[in-house]
Amino acid sequence: MEAPQYIGKEEVPSTLLRPGIDDPDSMRGKFEHMIRGVQTQVVAAIEEVDGCTFRQDAWTRPSGGGGITRVLQEGNVWEKAGVAVSVVYGTMPAESYRVAVGKDVPFEKDDRVPFFAAGVSSVMHPWNPHCPTMHFNYRYFETEEWKGIPGQWWFGGGTDITPSYIDEEDMRHFHGTYKAVCDRHDPTWYDKMKTNCDDYFQIPHRGETRGMGGIFFDDLNDRDQDAIFAFSSDCAANIVESYVPIVKKHKNDPYSARQKEWQQVRRGRYVEFNLVYDRGTIFGLKTGGRIESILMSMPLTASWRYDYQPEAQSTEAKFLDAVKNAHKQRWV
Amino acid sequence: MEAPQYIGKEEVPSTLLRPGIDDPDSMRGKFEHMIRGVQTQVVAAIEEVDGCTFRQDAWTRPSGGGGITRVLQEGNVWEKAGVAVSVVYGTMPAESYRVAVGKDVPFEKDDRVPFFAAGVSSVMHPWNPHCPTMHFNYRYFETEEWKGIPGQWWFGGGTDITPSYIDEEDMRHFHGTYKAVCDRHDPTWYDKMKTNCDDYFQIPHRGETRGMGGIFFDDLNDRDQDAIFAFSSDCAANIVESYVPIVKKHKNDPYSARQKEWQQVRRGRYVEFNLVYDRGTIFGLKTGGRIESILMSMPLTASWRYDYQPEAQSTEAKFLDAVKNAHKQRWV
Repeated sequence: MEAPQYIGKEEVPSTLLRPGIDDPDSMRGKFEHMIRGVQTQVVAAIEEVDGCTFRQDAWTRPSGGGGITRVLQEGNVWEKAGVAVSVVYGTMPAESYRVAVGKDVPFEKDDRVPFFAAGVSSVMHPWNPHCPTMHFNYRYFETEEWKGIPGQWWFGGGTDITPSYIDEEDMRHFHGTYKAVCDRHDPTWYDKMKTNCDDYFQIPHRGETRGMGGIFFDDLNDRDQDAIFAFSSDCAANIVESYVPIVKKHKNDPYSARQKEWQQVRRGRYVEFNLVYDRGTIFGLKTGGRIESILMSMPLTASWRYDYQPEAQSTEAKFLDAVKNAHKQRWV
Repeated sequence: MEAPQYIGKEEVPSTLLRPGIDDPDSMRGKFEHMIRGVQTQVVAAIEEVDGCTFRQDAWTRPSGGGGITRVLQEGNVWEKAGVAVSVVYGTMPAESYRVAVGKDVPFEKDDRVPFFAAGVSSVMHPWNPHCPTMHFNYRYFETEEWKGIPGQWWFGGGTDITPSYIDEEDMRHFHGTYKAVCDRHDPTWYDKMKTNCDDYFQIPHRGETRGMGGIFFDDLNDRDQDAIFAFSSDCAANIVESYVPIVKKHKNDPYSARQKEWQQVRRGRYVEFNLVYDRGTIFGLKTGGRIESILMSMPLTASWRYDYQPEAQSTEAKFLDAVKNAHKQRWV
């Protein structure tokens, strides 16, 4: 893959697709338009609450694709918040392709299949230990026609929340927002995608989840493409509503040194998950992605205290019990 | 493997070997005696400089083996310092064994080969950004006789240093101490082991080493067992001399907010290396080791700043240049 060309911080191209090659009315075009809109909407909502502005870095690659990373650091409410979109044209090993499509297509050892991937991803870490960290990612993946097999496509994504303390009303609001979104598209989805989320964000060496979950879906292509696109768009359109009211409610809550310390320990768990288990992070680190965009998800600060044990019956102990039993939590 | 039995913080067994089974005069016995002594010696030297004391956690397993972890947290000089010894009786897959011994020994699919492993490991993170972090690990590995092949053995280890700023005199002292140790045993070793160390502590996604290196050796069994044991013991006996004078020299150095920030960014790199690449850490996390002993190596605090770029010509920029070119640094 050629080196990315950095472009002006304030000038961003109207499309990261290949002009004159990719049809703007195709799913590629529609998906890029959706995620660019999500980036703009989420950044505007966070800036309004925070009072500080995001910086912007954008780059393109000569043969197509690129990214726009927007980051707010040391704001008034968030210590670090990032929202990144990217469009990638690449090739994958034929073996991985065969597994993905589930067809016994013959191939030569070094065959590679061209793919397109576009996505928006974000992590927001507030200063106040009573305000949760939030993460989302919505992505679309497509292979080109290859050896007579037509192009394949998949959607993936999810939004999940990582508080340091449990406020049941907040959790009902966050999960309730996404249950309502899911229910508009398929009444079986919320339960499945909540379980997927609790499975995905496990930190096996701790016997804990990273946070309090949300929804997570991957490799979704079991129905009409436009129907899944509508679902993905609806999920993305509800990010602000699911999260920002919770931050507004708590951003001025008083907190103790012990509560800040606990938040920092939980930030350490966030780092452990992302660096040891998160597929997207590890894939990015090991395949030469833009490091600063990949590690935008890291908190500004984190802490590892030896053998940190919350006091019995404390709010910290209750939180630990909840992340050890995420699958049992039914918020809505 | 059975659950470990935690034992009193102040009572530690005189041996972690299997009493009545393992001969105290065998290499197992000699190595355990050596690493226990190193733990005592290093802890005493650090306590003397710091003024605070290490806590102690010890455990044993009913069928043999155990560990003693000693940690000082939020001391006067060190934010976190840990020294752990462990003795493990386990079994490894026959396939891994065959690769390790390099012999085409026939085996059944689920065959496992009994092994013994003992080691001491340590990381020390000082508060002052002018005092380096230091890490060491010395280990001995032995397989039992299996399918007529006699027991095999290997030594591994090393000591390496991770400052946030380069003080050439310090680096000459640290590397010079280990060059002198190596030269006493084999004049070709320092160069080889310095290169091994720079290779091992690479963070490929950053194009940097974790720190300023030292020596590193693995699978060493190319000469008489007692000769390698003498080398390993000599390395371990020089930990305090290689490191403590550097900390004494700098522990009261004044530092700015920018220097502390830079140290925190470098701590983030330390975490990235340990969680993404360090074989011992990943092996421990994924095989159910005692998490608190494995992650004792994490700093108390770390930071990830988006796209942090030191000013040109600054001392931070010089450090970054050094970790991008570790192989070229010849300190002695």
